Amino acid sequence: MTAEKRLPFASDYQQGAHPRILERLAAANMEANAGYGTDVHSEHAREFIRDACGAPQAEVHFLVGGTQANAVTIDALLAPWQGVVAADSGHVSVHEAGAIEACGHKVIQLPERDGKLGAADVDALATSWEQDENRDHMVMPGPVYISQPTEYGTLYSLEELTALRTACDAHGMRLYVDGARLAYALSALGNDVTLPDLAHLTDAFYIGGTKCGALLGEAVVFPKPGTCPHFFTLVKQHGALLAKGMVAGIQFETLFDEGLYLRIGTKAVEQAGRIAHALDDAGCELLHPQQTNQVFVALDEKRYATLSARVEMSFWERLADGRTAVRLATSWASSDEDVDALVALLRD
Amino acid sequence: MTAEKRLPFASDYQQGAHPRILERLAAANMEANAGYGTDVHSEHAREFIRDACGAPQAEVHFLVGGTQANAVTIDALLAPWQGVVAADSGHVSVHEAGAIEACGHKVIQLPERDGKLGAADVDALATSWEQDENRDHMVMPGPVYISQPTEYGTLYSLEELTALRTACDAHGMRLYVDGARLAYALSALGNDVTLPDLAHLTDAFYIGGTKCGALLGEAVVFPKPGTCPHFFTLVKQHGALLAKGMVAGIQFETLFDEGLYLRIGTKAVEQAGRIAHALDDAGCELLHPQQTNQVFVALDEKRYATLSARVEMSFWERLADGRTAVRLATSWASSDEDVDALVALLRD
Amino acid sequence: MTAEKRLPFASDYQQGAHPRILERLAAANMEANAGYGTDVHSEHAREFIRDACGAPQAEVHFLVGGTQANAVTIDALLAPWQGVVAADSGHVSVHEAGAIEACGHKVIQLPERDGKLGAADVDALATSWEQDENRDHMVMPGPVYISQPTEYGTLYSLEELTALRTACDAHGMRLYVDGARLAYALSALGNDVTLPDLAHLTDAFYIGGTKCGALLGEAVVFPKPGTCPHFFTLVKQHGALLAKGMVAGIQFETLFDEGLYLRIGTKAVEQAGRIAHALDDAGCELLHPQQTNQVFVALDEKRYATLSARVEMSFWERLADGRTAVRLATSWASSDEDVDALVALLRD
Amino acid sequence: MTAEKRLPFASDYQQGAHPRILERLAAANMEANAGYGTDVHSEHAREFIRDACGAPQAEVHFLVGGTQANAVTIDALLAPWQGVVAADSGHVSVHEAGAIEACGHKVIQLPERDGKLGAADVDALATSWEQDENRDHMVMPGPVYISQPTEYGTLYSLEELTALRTACDAHGMRLYVDGARLAYALSALGNDVTLPDLAHLTDAFYIGGTKCGALLGEAVVFPKPGTCPHFFTLVKQHGALLAKGMVAGIQFETLFDEGLYLRIGTKAVEQAGRIAHALDDAGCELLHPQQTNQVFVALDEKRYATLSARVEMSFWERLADGRTAVRLATSWASSDEDVDALVALLRD
Repeated sequence: MTAEKRLPFASDYQQGAHPRILERLAAANMEANAGYGTDVHSEHAREFIRDACGAPQAEVHFLVGGTQANAVTIDALLAPWQGVVAADSGHVSVHEAGAIEACGHKVIQLPERDGKLGAADVDALATSWEQDENRDHMVMPGPVYISQPTEYGTLYSLEELTALRTACDAHGMRLYVDGARLAYALSALGNDVTLPDLAHLTDAFYIGGTKCGALLGEAVVFPKPGTCPHFFTLVKQHGALLAKGMVAGIQFETLFDEGLYLRIGTKAVEQAGRIAHALDDAGCELLHPQQTNQVFVALDEKRYATLSARVEMSFWERLADGRTAVRLATSWASSDEDVDALVALLRD
Repeated sequence: MTAEKRLPFASDYQQGAHPRILERLAAANMEANAGYGTDVHSEHAREFIRDACGAPQAEVHFLVGGTQANAVTIDALLAPWQGVVAADSGHVSVHEAGAIEACGHKVIQLPERDGKLGAADVDALATSWEQDENRDHMVMPGPVYISQPTEYGTLYSLEELTALRTACDAHGMRLYVDGARLAYALSALGNDVTLPDLAHLTDAFYIGGTKCGALLGEAVVFPKPGTCPHFFTLVKQHGALLAKGMVAGIQFETLFDEGLYLRIGTKAVEQAGRIAHALDDAGCELLHPQQTNQVFVALDEKRYATLSARVEMSFWERLADGRTAVRLATSWASSDEDVDALVALLRD
Repeated sequence: MTAEKRLPFASDYQQGAHPRILERLAAANMEANAGYGTDVHSEHAREFIRDACGAPQAEVHFLVGGTQANAVTIDALLAPWQGVVAADSGHVSVHEAGAIEACGHKVIQLPERDGKLGAADVDALATSWEQDENRDHMVMPGPVYISQPTEYGTLYSLEELTALRTACDAHGMRLYVDGARLAYALSALGNDVTLPDLAHLTDAFYIGGTKCGALLGEAVVFPKPGTCPHFFTLVKQHGALLAKGMVAGIQFETLFDEGLYLRIGTKAVEQAGRIAHALDDAGCELLHPQQTNQVFVALDEKRYATLSARVEMSFWERLADGRTAVRLATSWASSDEDVDALVALLRD
Repeated sequence: MTAEKRLPFASDYQQGAHPRILERLAAANMEANAGYGTDVHSEHAREFIRDACGAPQAEVHFLVGGTQANAVTIDALLAPWQGVVAADSGHVSVHEAGAIEACGHKVIQLPERDGKLGAADVDALATSWEQDENRDHMVMPGPVYISQPTEYGTLYSLEELTALRTACDAHGMRLYVDGARLAYALSALGNDVTLPDLAHLTDAFYIGGTKCGALLGEAVVFPKPGTCPHFFTLVKQHGALLAKGMVAGIQFETLFDEGLYLRIGTKAVEQAGRIAHALDDAGCELLHPQQTNQVFVALDEKRYATLSARVEMSFWERLADGRTAVRLATSWASSDEDVDALVALLRD
């Protein structure tokens, strides 16, 4: 629409798939595969993921998108009398059009700090419910939902994650991690939470494909088998089962072959770091620490206007002081040329 | 697993995508597209579909799979006090793991003939409800669900479809068509129901991609705009919204460019015809007339065993007389060599 | 509306409550009771019911109405991937406005004979599901729902009930009995199914109050404690919890004190028997054997008109041959004078 | 259980019904009434309520309890893409075990002041949603839920209610009022919101019976007919339809005959005022202004222990400073003797 193409930093789902994925899809195209995820590629991908997680018994299911993975898994993890506990800023709290509630469950929202849920808040909530004489008239705080990285691109440390697990254990609650952008967490400089940590500390999590190099697809992992009986049927019931399961299977087979998933993350996080520094140098306030591939920054009206003319960014919200919060995101597809151009722009 | 590869006629979703689709996905891979179906390819695909349907005002939404398309659309079409009317053999009645009921709605099942719902049965059901003094204690028969082709591969004629529309109009009911395999209906020899007919006679239908040459994707069409307000949000709420909407958009853009969709169907139906004749010649009873790409046949124990050893088929059901009903399906990916081999096998 | 009052046989919920219930409500009116069913009357009623059922560990919950008791209990008994199995004529299949589906579950309908579900049909359904290769794409047949007496006033014998239990056990299914009119079953002449039998053979059942002498109220009984965890909260969530639980508690305390519940039934069934004989003598076809307090009869046009002018009956359905099926019901409140008058009318 | 009976101020649902209601129930007991709320008493009650509301076209439905009335009405008022807006302290937010979410809808919680929702907060929420570029991925703020009196016994003034209506109108939102304790609001000294005001300013509200003198029953009022089509069937689907509708009908017929409903409130509010003054005089902090029949007070450990031994109160919550918040409630059934005794106790 604009005469000049703007620099593409609006999101991490603007381009297709990592080229190697397209190659593999093409190579397997005429194979006669079994349907519904029972094909050899999906099996192979499951093995790769179990290995990467150090969880040889894990159940792995390939779903299509993040809201879907959250809704189906949380629905399966919850008893009807429970709600899922999430940060106010959690994707399930805000940006999933009520998908959890549409499955019949309350999202019990707690305050966030840099997008993160605190173990003490979870503990206090559960304790308060347990001590309330009216608790049987109230939604029981059930599984805890967090995102790694969070919706603000920040990271839980291993200590924070362990504390959440401890809080959950103290109250018989399950822990579920939304890993829509997990590649960018696993590869972040300061990160100390590995896939085996996630497998060890959570009841379920998903490894994001859509925003980490795939055309689509999220791998839901249950480290302990039997966590959610009949999950396959629930996936079908939610309309989340791919007839051509190999389409997701091949993509995860590729992402987890020879460490591609981590390599994708490393580069994008490095690029996001350069953008964050340039914004900071230009006097723009970063709204959250940049730790992964997303940069949240407050722009005054003039800066927002001039930058928008040249750069695709995501509007986040209007701040109370009149500034606009925007998000810039890198991905496996970001080119150094585009990052250079953005940095140069900010220097002017 | 078997030493020898069996002939692949188990389903029409065993292979990937028509090669031209893979080419187009690769060509567009590094474009920076807008998300959630607002990209130019999706827009372009919508225009192609509107043109093909002779419905310039139609709303077109790209979803991922058939069960999902049915659940989201039927949920949107139904009022809470209504149920959807379907044949006993309808996909929503049997093979969607209760997806419609999980959205809160009853599937009101009527007897089928060759997989089809009769206009007289619909009319009688609605009349009976209207005349029942207890009707306000009962589920109101709401939208009518049919499949074209049906789950048994048979076709509604234009006369039958028009009669259903008339019955619906007589009772203020909507008509919805599941077109999971629509390519194979549109291109069938005896077919007289065109896309413009569907657009003219229905309130909503979907054009199947997954089983008609795409990796995945179904195009839900509302011929009249505004039929289901806020449908985009409902799609999101059901976890059915693709972040990378262009993945579906590019595929339908390809399928509806220069008539590829119909060409795919023509070849597969012709091949299914050859298989049906060979089965008939071999003395196997066809359970339904072969009109599209699916062949339903009853096999005695011995024949079932010997054929299964050489051919991938779909088990359908055990018949009362001990025979096994199986389905053989062709698709855009079936090769003439494989069909020849199957025909030769049956001749022996 | 008519100058002359018609004889009241339309239903068993036309009058208020057995006078002794009103007395007890009045006597307890100014007590300061605890809420939500934790009061002493409810506790007392639970003890009476446990005694009558010979089930000292049973959990007993007082709900308000039949559709509610069915929906809440079936929702609690079912896993999300299961449907409830019921006769075509089952109350949950037809006359509850889709309450089960609104909770997300399919009602899997089987043919009825005199309103009854056959053990062989249940067994065949479950076996068919188990043997179907696509069973994970289908709703699993879950709990079995039957009514005692049935919607047509007929009775399961102990042998039939035991056969159903055996069929359920063979497939890991639960058995639930809707006892909306249980008083009229327990006291029927030919009946051989006692409350202890129900407690022994079912996973849950409810003892109807509304149609058996109470203003309202149904007692849901789980013979084995812990059958449905957090049932209290589910009752609340469904909006089915009475703040003034003693209103139901006092009524069941009264009904199960000194055998009132059975006495109520005995008289009404006897009266229904007189009506059935009179109809038969008058040449009217009984549509089902009269075993309890309901009489279903086919009336030709003229007889329907003349009788309707003098008697309140329930329209049931228009029969294919033009006759009208109607129901006449007696209850604890039917007077011998009214029965005499009806019998006299039929004699003319 | 305690040797001495404690003074009954735990709630307004401890006793049965106003004596006149019991009389009327007894008087009508042997009438043969039509079922499901079509009886003459229900019709009569509807007429009384329409008169009292100055809303001759209003639709009036009798349901059983408050959580049920909220869930059914809110479910009927909401589109699937909408959530209901409520105060953090709203009954639907906290004490209904997730009944709204179980119907598929999000409760969008806003901060409360003395239990009240501010028009400015509603306006800001709706404006923020409208201006958010991601709004189609979010739950649309739909109907606004408030309680009159609030869960803390406080009152909206006519000015506040009108401001809420204006905010709703500005954003196309509906307004719904939970009147579980409406008798105590209508009769409060400072109250300036009448039944005709509610009918004029809201889209739906319910007139509480259970806590205002009835055994059970809530009257849902839609001032404009046709607000929620097929509401009767929705009531049935939710298991909320009384077979013996006259049981609710007779009670509301009594409450709205000769102003009984208001008289019940007047006395109880006066008594609550005496209790509030006594608590204040005793140096106990009232947590909210006492305006109706509920008094919320903070008690230190010692006072809580000594008072609990003599008075039935409702535990509300543990305060951060270690004190306990409790609720005392009066009702139509509170005797002056008991109030005198409580006041005397507090004086010591």
